[in-house]
Amino acid sequence: MSYTTTDSLFQSVELETQIRRLHRAVGNAVVDDKHLVFAAGSMQLINALVHALSPDANAASPPASVVATVPYYPAYRLQTAMFDGREYKWGGTTALWANASRDSTSGFIEFVTSPNNPDALLREPVLGGSAVISDHAYYWPHFTHIPAPADEDVMMFTISKPSGHAGSRFGWALIRDENVAKRAYDYVQMSIMGASRDTQLRMLGIVTVMLANLHGEDDIFAFGHDVMRSRWRRLNAVVSRSRRISLQKMAPQYCTYFKRIREPSPAYAWVKCEREEDEDCYGALLKAKIISRSGVANEARSRYTRISLLKSDDDFDVLMERVTDLVNAEKYNDAPGSSSM
Amino acid sequence: MSYTTTDSLFQSVELETQIRRLHRAVGNAVVDDKHLVFAAGSMQLINALVHALSPDANAASPPASVVATVPYYPAYRLQTAMFDGREYKWGGTTALWANASRDSTSGFIEFVTSPNNPDALLREPVLGGSAVISDHAYYWPHFTHIPAPADEDVMMFTISKPSGHAGSRFGWALIRDENVAKRAYDYVQMSIMGASRDTQLRMLGIVTVMLANLHGEDDIFAFGHDVMRSRWRRLNAVVSRSRRISLQKMAPQYCTYFKRIREPSPAYAWVKCEREEDEDCYGALLKAKIISRSGVANEARSRYTRISLLKSDDDFDVLMERVTDLVNAEKYNDAPGSSSM
Repeated sequence: MSYTTTDSLFQSVELETQIRRLHRAVGNAVVDDKHLVFAAGSMQLINALVHALSPDANAASPPASVVATVPYYPAYRLQTAMFDGREYKWGGTTALWANASRDSTSGFIEFVTSPNNPDALLREPVLGGSAVISDHAYYWPHFTHIPAPADEDVMMFTISKPSGHAGSRFGWALIRDENVAKRAYDYVQMSIMGASRDTQLRMLGIVTVMLANLHGEDDIFAFGHDVMRSRWRRLNAVVSRSRRISLQKMAPQYCTYFKRIREPSPAYAWVKCEREEDEDCYGALLKAKIISRSGVANEARSRYTRISLLKSDDDFDVLMERVTDLVNAEKYNDAPGSSSM
Repeated sequence: MSYTTTDSLFQSVELETQIRRLHRAVGNAVVDDKHLVFAAGSMQLINALVHALSPDANAASPPASVVATVPYYPAYRLQTAMFDGREYKWGGTTALWANASRDSTSGFIEFVTSPNNPDALLREPVLGGSAVISDHAYYWPHFTHIPAPADEDVMMFTISKPSGHAGSRFGWALIRDENVAKRAYDYVQMSIMGASRDTQLRMLGIVTVMLANLHGEDDIFAFGHDVMRSRWRRLNAVVSRSRRISLQKMAPQYCTYFKRIREPSPAYAWVKCEREEDEDCYGALLKAKIISRSGVANEARSRYTRISLLKSDDDFDVLMERVTDLVNAEKYNDAPGSSSM
């Protein structure tokens, strides 16, 4: 198996065609005026795109500041800090800069995750003058309504979320500007000589099957939405009885893919512990044998923690049992005249 | 397909076992006291190991200087320059530092490619005090004699060269020090979340088949040595008649894998143009329709160029025709009394 595919490229032209078809058919991204860059997962795209949007090493410009809005996906900070390049640095959260003038944030690169990981809400950029990397890993109709095709300058997608093939390590960027796309492509080429061609072949099969079944009986998004909506509904039903924990608020919304109002179906529950003594929400859930990820990693307060709803049915049933036990254990003295509220 | 394999790792424990078995059976590396770190090709290991051997970002130490000896594999320089980290920088060729004292090269990271790409010769470190990354991509018995198992502190291998699955993007490092191994593993995890598990599964099949056939009728190394030895012999027979071009000198050597003296079988011919007017050896060959890679990329002079002997039989036959035409076109006036030599 050679290093290259068609035309001495490191990426399959046929897979590129099928990915463009998938975006058009789902209606979640405008692809016609974009360049497509493959990578070993969207994880690799974090630094590839930061590199591509940063000033050239030979430029006199100061390093770009890489920022995100709380609660944000921790890998943006961790990966930027690990590579620790001379052309960029982690600049903290957008809250530090939100009141700065548009001009003074012109050297910024802002990660905008929409839907957001961990809280599943759609997002827009916060800083005015920054270059934006739109991470649309979860922008597929099983996880969110699709109000319109995304059309930002620099967008990240991954196969991990639409089909669940996270271990395959395959992601792609849609990039409007040719020079930015070339720098991102060169980054992937120079760091790993392109995403594995074994993986690209497998992705070709997967994307083709997904495409062939859209809006049919085996529509992966209809299936995924059914499962995730049901989980969110069950979790909400229990947590709504609790005064100890609460979830992010999500409303039914019109979806252009399903052509109807759809119920929320997030990948993650963003849990807040409401009691004063539950300062460490992760710890409070762990005592009830519920494993989550503390909001500290997202630079949210420790009062928040993320529960993943992406698991097997059996594991989700166990999770529901434990959440139910936790909520049932709450005891309040709500007799008339009590002030315990 | 999940992110992780056994024990929440990003690398297959079974593949690790089979790779260790392969090294033991071939006798080309001591594995028992080494940690194994997988990556998306040995390409990714270049910066992973530079990162792992560089001072910590928080340390007060100056950045490490990354160096190699001419003619060297250009990706060491290109990748180090692209990542442009604060903890390391490209330091040029070892010739610049060879006369420095051992103490003054203690912040150096030296790439030692053995057999070397482009000239196929076995190599040792040049600088005394440097950390060494031993790139053994070609240290397999179809490309070189194996005098003894390699036992350096930090070694790179790749599947691209033993089996030819270059497009699969799979490489591994053998690392003695636990902390260096952990930093390299964390680098791969944080940059791509581990080499593709599709690829790891395929590698498991390939390594298992290679192992099962060692020293048998379908020994991949015996096959590869036969092919490469025959190509080198044919090329030498023609070039030995030339005064215009010459090749690197390689002698038959005892090989512990084949347990006999074996003829040379390099992956590349390192061609020198001997005529004064052929200052641009790459260009001189290109006029004869022979595509090579100029030695300029290796910081050798333009008088040198690399011809790859890794190609299909048909392509190699065409190469031989063109080299033969080039050599046959040489005309000398060698009559007695002539001084044209």
